[in-house]
Amino acid sequence: MRTETLYQDFKARMAKQADVSYTIGVLSWDKEVNMPSKGERFRNQQIATLSGIAHEMFTSDAIGELLEQLDAKKDELSFEEARNIELTKRDFHRNKKLNEAFVIRRSQLCSQAYDSWLKAKAANDFSKFQAAFEEIIKIKQEEAALLGYEASPYNALLEDYEPGYTAAMLDELFADVRAKLVDFVREIRQQPQVDDSFLYQRYTKKKQWDFSIYLLKQLGYSFEAGRQDWSPHPFTINFSANDVRITTRVNERDLATLLWSSIHECGHALYEQGLPTDYYGLPVGYYVSLGIHESQSRLWENNVGRSLAFWKGHYSKLQSTFSKQLSHVNVTQFYKGINKIAPSLIRTEADELHYHFHIMTRYELEKAMLEGDLSVKDVESAWNEKYKNYLDLDVPDAKSGILQDIHWAYGSIGYFPTYSLGSFYAAQFFSQAEKEIPTLREEMEQGKTDSVLAWLRANIHQQGRRYTATELCTKITGEPLNFKYFYDYAKAKYSQIYDLK
Amino acid sequence: MRTETLYQDFKARMAKQADVSYTIGVLSWDKEVNMPSKGERFRNQQIATLSGIAHEMFTSDAIGELLEQLDAKKDELSFEEARNIELTKRDFHRNKKLNEAFVIRRSQLCSQAYDSWLKAKAANDFSKFQAAFEEIIKIKQEEAALLGYEASPYNALLEDYEPGYTAAMLDELFADVRAKLVDFVREIRQQPQVDDSFLYQRYTKKKQWDFSIYLLKQLGYSFEAGRQDWSPHPFTINFSANDVRITTRVNERDLATLLWSSIHECGHALYEQGLPTDYYGLPVGYYVSLGIHESQSRLWENNVGRSLAFWKGHYSKLQSTFSKQLSHVNVTQFYKGINKIAPSLIRTEADELHYHFHIMTRYELEKAMLEGDLSVKDVESAWNEKYKNYLDLDVPDAKSGILQDIHWAYGSIGYFPTYSLGSFYAAQFFSQAEKEIPTLREEMEQGKTDSVLAWLRANIHQQGRRYTATELCTKITGEPLNFKYFYDYAKAKYSQIYDLK
Repeated sequence: MRTETLYQDFKARMAKQADVSYTIGVLSWDKEVNMPSKGERFRNQQIATLSGIAHEMFTSDAIGELLEQLDAKKDELSFEEARNIELTKRDFHRNKKLNEAFVIRRSQLCSQAYDSWLKAKAANDFSKFQAAFEEIIKIKQEEAALLGYEASPYNALLEDYEPGYTAAMLDELFADVRAKLVDFVREIRQQPQVDDSFLYQRYTKKKQWDFSIYLLKQLGYSFEAGRQDWSPHPFTINFSANDVRITTRVNERDLATLLWSSIHECGHALYEQGLPTDYYGLPVGYYVSLGIHESQSRLWENNVGRSLAFWKGHYSKLQSTFSKQLSHVNVTQFYKGINKIAPSLIRTEADELHYHFHIMTRYELEKAMLEGDLSVKDVESAWNEKYKNYLDLDVPDAKSGILQDIHWAYGSIGYFPTYSLGSFYAAQFFSQAEKEIPTLREEMEQGKTDSVLAWLRANIHQQGRRYTATELCTKITGEPLNFKYFYDYAKAKYSQIYDLK
Repeated sequence: MRTETLYQDFKARMAKQADVSYTIGVLSWDKEVNMPSKGERFRNQQIATLSGIAHEMFTSDAIGELLEQLDAKKDELSFEEARNIELTKRDFHRNKKLNEAFVIRRSQLCSQAYDSWLKAKAANDFSKFQAAFEEIIKIKQEEAALLGYEASPYNALLEDYEPGYTAAMLDELFADVRAKLVDFVREIRQQPQVDDSFLYQRYTKKKQWDFSIYLLKQLGYSFEAGRQDWSPHPFTINFSANDVRITTRVNERDLATLLWSSIHECGHALYEQGLPTDYYGLPVGYYVSLGIHESQSRLWENNVGRSLAFWKGHYSKLQSTFSKQLSHVNVTQFYKGINKIAPSLIRTEADELHYHFHIMTRYELEKAMLEGDLSVKDVESAWNEKYKNYLDLDVPDAKSGILQDIHWAYGSIGYFPTYSLGSFYAAQFFSQAEKEIPTLREEMEQGKTDSVLAWLRANIHQQGRRYTATELCTKITGEPLNFKYFYDYAKAKYSQIYDLK
């Protein structure tokens, strides 16, 4: 058969498989946002059936043969076509290494672990989660062995979230964080604190919602290709680049909750809305990695959304929306308040510097458990020790310590580091954008971020998954990920805010 | 293999197929209610892919063989099991008779006809729809031939909507309507008109919505197994008996729009919420026919929702919600106003008596076209003639005449009569319920309809599709559908409202 015909067949099959996968997304979004409570039982069954169909479609022999045939003819393919074959082949073989019995067992263990975690958290008692967590670590070790790896089993798992990145690279990166950021943040903690009390007045839900819609529009989020809804845990989900939805949450006693939920998810969504629709269902049409995805949310949330220039452009609108609450707060006070640095126990509430100590803790512990250097029974005390070292905090109990996150209970080992990677990539990308767009700051002060979005669209979004994260970063900034950019950003910003030399 | 094992296999396959079918429902509901505009292209593709999968699952040889094996052992099956096999086999063989090429061609013709219909309606010109409509009639004749039929090709198509009913039965029924209702309604038209002007004041959207939620709760609609949303064309859809959603619409200048949209859809939804969940995906777990489905919406909309007793129970709540608009309207005036009988051109705006002349017109025309007794080019003048005969109305143009409904453009021939069947079944069922529940009217006057719902649950909802419509009707009321019940209801009610002897 002609190569072109084979490739068309491959493309059609991938599109159909994407149709099913995105449909599972619709079922899940609806479950979070709309579904009445009694719908759960049959909805879970519907999701399971569709997941089975998607798995069957993707692991079929027909796809396997097509991939072999096309791989043998890769000289006849364009760069993008060859890349699609290469990445699909990689995923296909990874999938094949995990047989059905293993996948079912893993899914059952994760369900059990999730239930145990819920109970343990409610009881504020890690020992109730320990047995299930041991099973999770064991099966993830087994998974790593089935997938195969070099150097560390952690690498096998990381590949799902941050392809091409390794534990050795993370070790080097976090060594840098440890060497530079821990001391700098400690220095900040010794300075007089900024005032953020104005954030904790009463801000009505309706007005907050309206302001978030205004911001989303300003940032370039397309409501023709998306919508915002409420959900307890904000998330972004897409069913094509033309239907990218976000959710947000509100606290009437804390203005920050909705603002940064919406901006963060908007960053994720702008990425998805900017991906090339021509590659629907094909690797080149997808995001690069979780780290790159997170770089987009963090760039908008922190580099843009927590900058003085941005609020010079939008503060008057916020102030007029909440005139009673904010009339006595000027834009500089507002800027300082939203950038308050203070250690806290909960990762999701952390400021943009302490955040990385939360991640470092999790990374070090999950890697040690997976490599067999730390047993699950000792992980709680190890956790508490790290919080003392990195954040100067005493962890009072399990629910505000080791049991706070759902990730491990879901079997996600190797996921956490992508949050830090995201922030660090964001700083490196934003620094490059600042160099290439001399008027960037000035435009932001006038409330305009179009040129930032255009730069991200051209350099990142429209590239899809043509390149690995490291290739992309090098192409854009001239070097692979380097913590220096984040450190320089943090140093300059917070030295000014906290009056450090 | 043991019969029980075979049956379990059959049941599991049917459940999976239902999972896929209900998932298509979720995609469609989301498309109507939530989807951003640009999402359409890929969503249509997702729906098409899922439809293909559902079709493949249902027409697989594996299902065919199971059905044969189980049919051969039907003595070993329970009544419900045997019924599930019988009905599935019927649908399976009907499906097999229409080959893939035919189904694709029909779907293409319907898409084209829909586009033509939109254009013709916008241009107010039937001739722009004529060619596409001719193709629809031709392919529906072809479909009838492929499916096979006795007496009339109409019977082959009717089977999809009202299994067991025939054109001969409809002819007899509508002869009765023609003989009795046309004159009675003409008599009403000669009486002084009732006043319904109070309905057309300004009723704010928010208050109307809140009142409809109140009503839905009063009627027994479960919000734990459903939700109400806005959509331009109200509909009911379910993804199991535990997730049955309705939509409604509002007109701030017409209180009736939202009230009866919500009550009508609620009637459909109460039926779906009451179907037996034990038969998920199996025929016995589904509704009997469109006529029976419509009987449930009409019973709540008309026999309950437009009765004096019902409003004696709820009018004070409505009046206090809209005190400015309704303080000078008493419950009797309200009752008369909502039951105003007046001919109008648009079916969906018709009162509960004229409504059937709209249906009769469509039935007579679609049957004549299908049987080759009327050509498409002559159908507009035939339409206008019938409106003159049955409703004493001159049809001024195509868009308020022949082009008003979407059904024919969608290829739905044989659907319209089920609307009238619904009203007539509703009258017959309600008359029986009144006999069996002596306190029914009294309870309704106190705002309670629990006993009506309980009666419907036991006699209709919980029966699922155990029986055909005619069997069910006979079981409940002692005889098959009889127009007499509707006529008696109409005669008593409107003679009183319009002061006729």
